[in-house]
Amino acid sequence: MTATVTDQRAYNFSAGPAVLPVSVLEEVRDELVCLPGARSSLLEMSHRDKVFVDILHDAENSIRSLLNISDDYSVLFLQGGAALQFSMIPANLLRGTEKSAAYIQTGTWGKKAIAEAKKEGAVNIVYDAADSNFNHVPSAEDYSVPADSAYLYYCNNETIQGVQFPSEPVCPDSVPLICDASSDFMHRPLDISKYGMVYACAQKNAGPAGVTVVVIRKDLLEIGSASLPGYLQYKNHAEADSEWNTPPTFAIWVLGKVARWLTNDIGGLEAMEKLNREKAGLLYNAIDSSNGFYTGHAKPECRSLMNATFVLPNDDLQSKFLSEAADNGLVALKGHRSVGGIRASIYNAMPKEGAQALADFMTAFASKNG
Amino acid sequence: MTATVTDQRAYNFSAGPAVLPVSVLEEVRDELVCLPGARSSLLEMSHRDKVFVDILHDAENSIRSLLNISDDYSVLFLQGGAALQFSMIPANLLRGTEKSAAYIQTGTWGKKAIAEAKKEGAVNIVYDAADSNFNHVPSAEDYSVPADSAYLYYCNNETIQGVQFPSEPVCPDSVPLICDASSDFMHRPLDISKYGMVYACAQKNAGPAGVTVVVIRKDLLEIGSASLPGYLQYKNHAEADSEWNTPPTFAIWVLGKVARWLTNDIGGLEAMEKLNREKAGLLYNAIDSSNGFYTGHAKPECRSLMNATFVLPNDDLQSKFLSEAADNGLVALKGHRSVGGIRASIYNAMPKEGAQALADFMTAFASKNG
Repeated sequence: MTATVTDQRAYNFSAGPAVLPVSVLEEVRDELVCLPGARSSLLEMSHRDKVFVDILHDAENSIRSLLNISDDYSVLFLQGGAALQFSMIPANLLRGTEKSAAYIQTGTWGKKAIAEAKKEGAVNIVYDAADSNFNHVPSAEDYSVPADSAYLYYCNNETIQGVQFPSEPVCPDSVPLICDASSDFMHRPLDISKYGMVYACAQKNAGPAGVTVVVIRKDLLEIGSASLPGYLQYKNHAEADSEWNTPPTFAIWVLGKVARWLTNDIGGLEAMEKLNREKAGLLYNAIDSSNGFYTGHAKPECRSLMNATFVLPNDDLQSKFLSEAADNGLVALKGHRSVGGIRASIYNAMPKEGAQALADFMTAFASKNG
Repeated sequence: MTATVTDQRAYNFSAGPAVLPVSVLEEVRDELVCLPGARSSLLEMSHRDKVFVDILHDAENSIRSLLNISDDYSVLFLQGGAALQFSMIPANLLRGTEKSAAYIQTGTWGKKAIAEAKKEGAVNIVYDAADSNFNHVPSAEDYSVPADSAYLYYCNNETIQGVQFPSEPVCPDSVPLICDASSDFMHRPLDISKYGMVYACAQKNAGPAGVTVVVIRKDLLEIGSASLPGYLQYKNHAEADSEWNTPPTFAIWVLGKVARWLTNDIGGLEAMEKLNREKAGLLYNAIDSSNGFYTGHAKPECRSLMNATFVLPNDDLQSKFLSEAADNGLVALKGHRSVGGIRASIYNAMPKEGAQALADFMTAFASKNG
């Protein structure tokens, strides 16, 4: 049966929720009705059952090990997605302070984060790429961050525009750097010690929808006020080891399996980065060698390794591209409704064969229709 | 393989996350790697894909149909559990008003809700059962609710204490009645038109952890301020049809399957109530006919149909009970760490055979050890 089911699957370029490793899906399937040794499904098990607590700790430890996270940081599993983080970050770190928070705006997700932050306190947009239609990230000399900022916030990879920071923004030592890594968490090694906080909703690069990973430096836990809604105070979750209330147990289970796959099957984040660069290279090469048939949105130096965004000469060709791609087993390639065009999301779990199949299709389509 | 896996399963009396229908688990397993007709797993599918949007609407419609919910109400699928509702309710309906909110406190969950409400505004505890160790719910003559209250809040079934309201509290027409139905949602028919809002985290009686169902009268959506964190404002979720941000897609999928099981396999909420009364009757009869070997916590007139709580003559016998029960395939019977004793949770998905097996075990254990 397995082979048949797997054969029905297409290469899925969805921007999120997004492709997961087939081996992880098969493991989840096999353990779904009765978790081995547990006498019930994981879905039916108390979050305080030792079996689940071990699963939660294993997921945390896999992430800590992959990213080399020190004990100076807490790793939390929360609900509410990046959207709730947009509010929780300023509610904890800005509300009630005399400070202002610095934001770099390089796309749709950063813009949404800024809108929520403004409800909580003073926001200082130190760089805004809106005027160039969010096609790039700034260089170090393009902006400066006041040393007394509450924090500096940025989104490392803007999925809708397909622009990604090649390295961390410049940030004064006195200012905690906060990164929305929702769409590229664990896509390459990261020096967590440079950050105050890194967070990611899981459903793009790390697992299913329903869980958000927050890696936060422990001193920052002390800033949020106890007058906040309890769920919104990071400290509550850290002190309760992500069991302040019932966590999203299934999503954490799958997230842990994906982290183990990264470690055991891929061989860690350096190997993952190498593979991701190869996959992205295939697509960008298909764009660049199309004699202008495909036009990439992002400036080449900040092209995303996760989401390749491009347009075709006209809407008719775009529709034809999507339809023929689907016939060839290449699905979910339509760009975000806010920008149009084509978006190919090639997260960690997209196999190189998938990127190769799409690149081949792009080249053939361009030569037939160009 | 199915038979073997099912044989490994025990009767699972966990208070939450809790037992699910085996047929639902088997369906989830069979569709996990590739959703029929969808070319990917549900876990990998965009929440804006028509296939998932249909799944979300089907889940909503099943709930609307089971509870006969009119168009005057929105049905929302949120994250953050009951714990976030403890804050969202007063943040939307109390914060910034001149009113006070009325609360009935009959157990641990009501108490937690009150603690969060006090952060948002004036709280008026109109009845408090703490002095009697939360062993009952009040009668209509025990309390009164000021007609200008922002709302009246209560928890219909207190899982930890095992006390349940046999019918709605009395509430002036001018005051929206708000019910935490987390542990008994859809356990029997409910006249939603009596309520301003009914909500339930799913992981006790309706599905897996990670989704919370909110049924809210549409006029109440207008009260919450746009200055709230976006995720906390009910109106945002209602206007976006629960897709204000990525919803917990898997949990909604399973919740929809459970609602369909209630409709098709059980035959609706009247049939469910009849079955639940039979199951609870078996356990309470085992307590009442034990000549005092078992002592129930709740007063008989407000015994929970969902969680039967009781103690044995001493701790040694309690440990022996738990250990021998597990040997007999009856697991997760330990009472909540805050109160001790035994708690048997017999939610909708616990088959009558499971309640019968526990009742038989209880009677045999009492006669051997009494």
